[in-house]
Amino acid sequence: MELAALCGAELIGDPQLRIDGPASLEAAGPNEVSFFGHARYAKELASTRAGALVVPRALDVKDCAATLLRCSDPNAAFTHVLNAFGRLPARPAPGVHPTAVIGRDVQLGVEVSIGAYCVVGEGARIGAGAVLHPHVVVGPRATVGERSELRSFVTLYDGVTLGARCLLHAGAVIGADGFGFDPRIGRAGLEGWDKVPHGGSVEIGDDVEVGANACVDRGRFEATRLGRGAKLDNLVHVGHNVQIGEHVLLIAQVGIAGSTKVGAGAVLAGRVGVNTHIEIGPGARVAPGSNVWHSIEGGRDYGGYWALPRGEWMRNQAHMNRISELAERVRALEKTLAKNLEKRLGNEQGGGA
Amino acid sequence: MELAALCGAELIGDPQLRIDGPASLEAAGPNEVSFFGHARYAKELASTRAGALVVPRALDVKDCAATLLRCSDPNAAFTHVLNAFGRLPARPAPGVHPTAVIGRDVQLGVEVSIGAYCVVGEGARIGAGAVLHPHVVVGPRATVGERSELRSFVTLYDGVTLGARCLLHAGAVIGADGFGFDPRIGRAGLEGWDKVPHGGSVEIGDDVEVGANACVDRGRFEATRLGRGAKLDNLVHVGHNVQIGEHVLLIAQVGIAGSTKVGAGAVLAGRVGVNTHIEIGPGARVAPGSNVWHSIEGGRDYGGYWALPRGEWMRNQAHMNRISELAERVRALEKTLAKNLEKRLGNEQGGGA
Amino acid sequence: MELAALCGAELIGDPQLRIDGPASLEAAGPNEVSFFGHARYAKELASTRAGALVVPRALDVKDCAATLLRCSDPNAAFTHVLNAFGRLPARPAPGVHPTAVIGRDVQLGVEVSIGAYCVVGEGARIGAGAVLHPHVVVGPRATVGERSELRSFVTLYDGVTLGARCLLHAGAVIGADGFGFDPRIGRAGLEGWDKVPHGGSVEIGDDVEVGANACVDRGRFEATRLGRGAKLDNLVHVGHNVQIGEHVLLIAQVGIAGSTKVGAGAVLAGRVGVNTHIEIGPGARVAPGSNVWHSIEGGRDYGGYWALPRGEWMRNQAHMNRISELAERVRALEKTLAKNLEKRLGNEQGGGA
Repeated sequence: MELAALCGAELIGDPQLRIDGPASLEAAGPNEVSFFGHARYAKELASTRAGALVVPRALDVKDCAATLLRCSDPNAAFTHVLNAFGRLPARPAPGVHPTAVIGRDVQLGVEVSIGAYCVVGEGARIGAGAVLHPHVVVGPRATVGERSELRSFVTLYDGVTLGARCLLHAGAVIGADGFGFDPRIGRAGLEGWDKVPHGGSVEIGDDVEVGANACVDRGRFEATRLGRGAKLDNLVHVGHNVQIGEHVLLIAQVGIAGSTKVGAGAVLAGRVGVNTHIEIGPGARVAPGSNVWHSIEGGRDYGGYWALPRGEWMRNQAHMNRISELAERVRALEKTLAKNLEKRLGNEQGGGA
Repeated sequence: MELAALCGAELIGDPQLRIDGPASLEAAGPNEVSFFGHARYAKELASTRAGALVVPRALDVKDCAATLLRCSDPNAAFTHVLNAFGRLPARPAPGVHPTAVIGRDVQLGVEVSIGAYCVVGEGARIGAGAVLHPHVVVGPRATVGERSELRSFVTLYDGVTLGARCLLHAGAVIGADGFGFDPRIGRAGLEGWDKVPHGGSVEIGDDVEVGANACVDRGRFEATRLGRGAKLDNLVHVGHNVQIGEHVLLIAQVGIAGSTKVGAGAVLAGRVGVNTHIEIGPGARVAPGSNVWHSIEGGRDYGGYWALPRGEWMRNQAHMNRISELAERVRALEKTLAKNLEKRLGNEQGGGA
Repeated sequence: MELAALCGAELIGDPQLRIDGPASLEAAGPNEVSFFGHARYAKELASTRAGALVVPRALDVKDCAATLLRCSDPNAAFTHVLNAFGRLPARPAPGVHPTAVIGRDVQLGVEVSIGAYCVVGEGARIGAGAVLHPHVVVGPRATVGERSELRSFVTLYDGVTLGARCLLHAGAVIGADGFGFDPRIGRAGLEGWDKVPHGGSVEIGDDVEVGANACVDRGRFEATRLGRGAKLDNLVHVGHNVQIGEHVLLIAQVGIAGSTKVGAGAVLAGRVGVNTHIEIGPGARVAPGSNVWHSIEGGRDYGGYWALPRGEWMRNQAHMNRISELAERVRALEKTLAKNLEKRLGNEQGGGA
């Protein structure tokens, strides 16, 4: 099985096994190869019918009937497998498409791939091995790091810098103006909003991924920053001057208001909203749909409409989910007390009669 | 009135009436044509000044002064009317614009319309009568069904399949990578996130509409699916491996986390968030702004920050909206009890003296 | 210092001071120029080390060591400063790029700038001095007002009208179909959704800004409207027939359901959701993450999952954040009462013995 060589894997089992393609642990049949990379899939592993499995070298898989491909980095190995079967979006070959419009003083690294109808502004720099899919706009003086990949309809505004090995999905917008307006108050009250100019930029570290149609605004004076290894999902909004630490995860539709800091390794689940000018501590984890109003410490879990430490939130939420019952109990107490009072008054009156 | 013929309508009233254009029931005047398609507009119907009305054949409109155009499908009929007055976005004529970049082995059906600057990747198939507005990117091996229409800046990633008669609005992104990362833990704790490769695709059924800037991610092994007749509004996010049933409505800004199933005919109102790996039963209806944490049964209404059956939610919400009062009542009870206790102790002490 | 002339500023201090660039009040050093425009930055002003400061003419800055540039409009002045140092995204020079595809009967005003790969549909009008960055699509019969600027990948659908001096950020979609579908009920229940045709348009006033990837849908009969001076942030959704008043602010990820009216000067903070067919009064302010279910009066502040007047919400929220404690207190009351009852029964029985 040439897959073993492809993966740099140690093969344990049948080297003659024919493999027709990849599949999930649940769906794979005897001529398919699947993947076990994380303990949370132990149940699926136990019942899989996959003919072959890419597994971590460390894994102890005694009773597994499948042929094993043991690797030090199963995710990377399985990427090779998926590529071998043509299952991953293709990385275009190097070259500059004749329709690409390349501005003056642009620096193109070796082996860049620039697709049809890309527009690269004056003074921009595209690092070696970078890929611009068709219809990417790189603004004047913007920088794309080595081997980064920009999917179609990505916009980098003027002067934005992007590290190495980043992946920006279709429609991501990096460097639009921060949302800043000062009220213009006249005799009749509000007469309009004066635009606050945004002279900062956006600086994105190495190995950052940005989801489809996500937006990261430029700073006012200094840069909005996404730290190395940060991953942003689709439709995320990052406001002006925000500082996102290394390896932060911002899951789909998260919104971070201006000037806020998110510490390294924090994970904000889908649809979390974060207030302006606050700090999320490193490694904090916030449950989906939460709103973070005040700064929170790192290393803990939070959640809720008004985000609180997770335990507190869960207790509160349980009570809110049966607040009608609580209200009933209060009403019952009021009735009992009123009856008691009546009785006592009755007794006293009776006693006084 | 040639509109009647245009609509295939039975005319009841003045065949000589001059019609200058379409308008809403509220705004229409004696030389305008309006539309009555649903009982919820009965009030507007009663007071309309419209000269002519497109109405369902079944409707009993006795006292209506307007000239009536009775049709079996009033929506379709009124579409003809709006088109006659140039009020609907135009469907471009067939033909391939000379600037379109068509890859190798692309199959183009008859009468396709491919606009300026479209890029169609190697091995893609565009069904008969399909329309690609200017600036659409169809990835390698992707499929667009017959008579589907893709507005500008739509991206179909590699291998995505789209049924017949779909409509994708501007900026929609179909098939970006699912958001999957495994933590890489070193001696110093989190050292980064390993990208989980996504070798699945997206399969979209017939008659699906996807709103502007909406995103549907590709699956990990198998496909993310949107069932026949599903309608997604603007800025909706559908995560990897999600299965959306037939005729589901996802209203603006809804977000569905990975691997979740939404049963046929379910309606999720605007800004609803749905947790990962759960099931929304067929025909369930969820109120705007709700978060669905656990699987819910079909055929019922739900709502709330922590979505509950609608009746329960409404009762709870009413109590939460006056929880200050409830807290006051608890405080009053505590005071009364404390006073009673004091009094009793007084009595007892008095009695003991 | 030629900056003074550039700003039209009165210089107070050292006219020979060398300025190397702009910076924030906090970060600026003795050879940098900063900006003080709003009283909320008084603290930063007090401790700034900036060599020069752009300030409002009215400001009384006695003890400030910096050289002052006093102007009547500091925001505008500082825009000149930022431009002088190349810190703002560049406005492209007039001219029509040879790759732009301009339809029949298009009217181009003097000094328009139309970038590479723009597509301007038949009968569209582009006002004098307007800028279309590369890759903008202007639909048939759409209108762009004088000096408006459209960033890359903006889509204007057919017939949309845009006022003067508007700024639309990358990926904004104006005029996609409203989300309207009528259920088609057959013998087996829901058989599908009939698309409700949308023959209205979108009308956008002067001086409007629309954020990246924001979406404004077209009306059904009449137009969806954004009033003069309104500002929309990234990823905002405005549904069909919505009427947004003058100078309204809609901060990131706000969603407004169809047919709702937002009165002049209202401010909806990030991620606010607004129900369909309601009215937000002029000057109302709604806190981030709120859901507005019913019409609300103008001139007041609101907030909460079920938005209430701000004071009421804050009181309620405080109680909800410690509802576990409230529930404990109710339980304690129940116990006390039960004990009292027991005691009384004991007494009565004792007394009756």
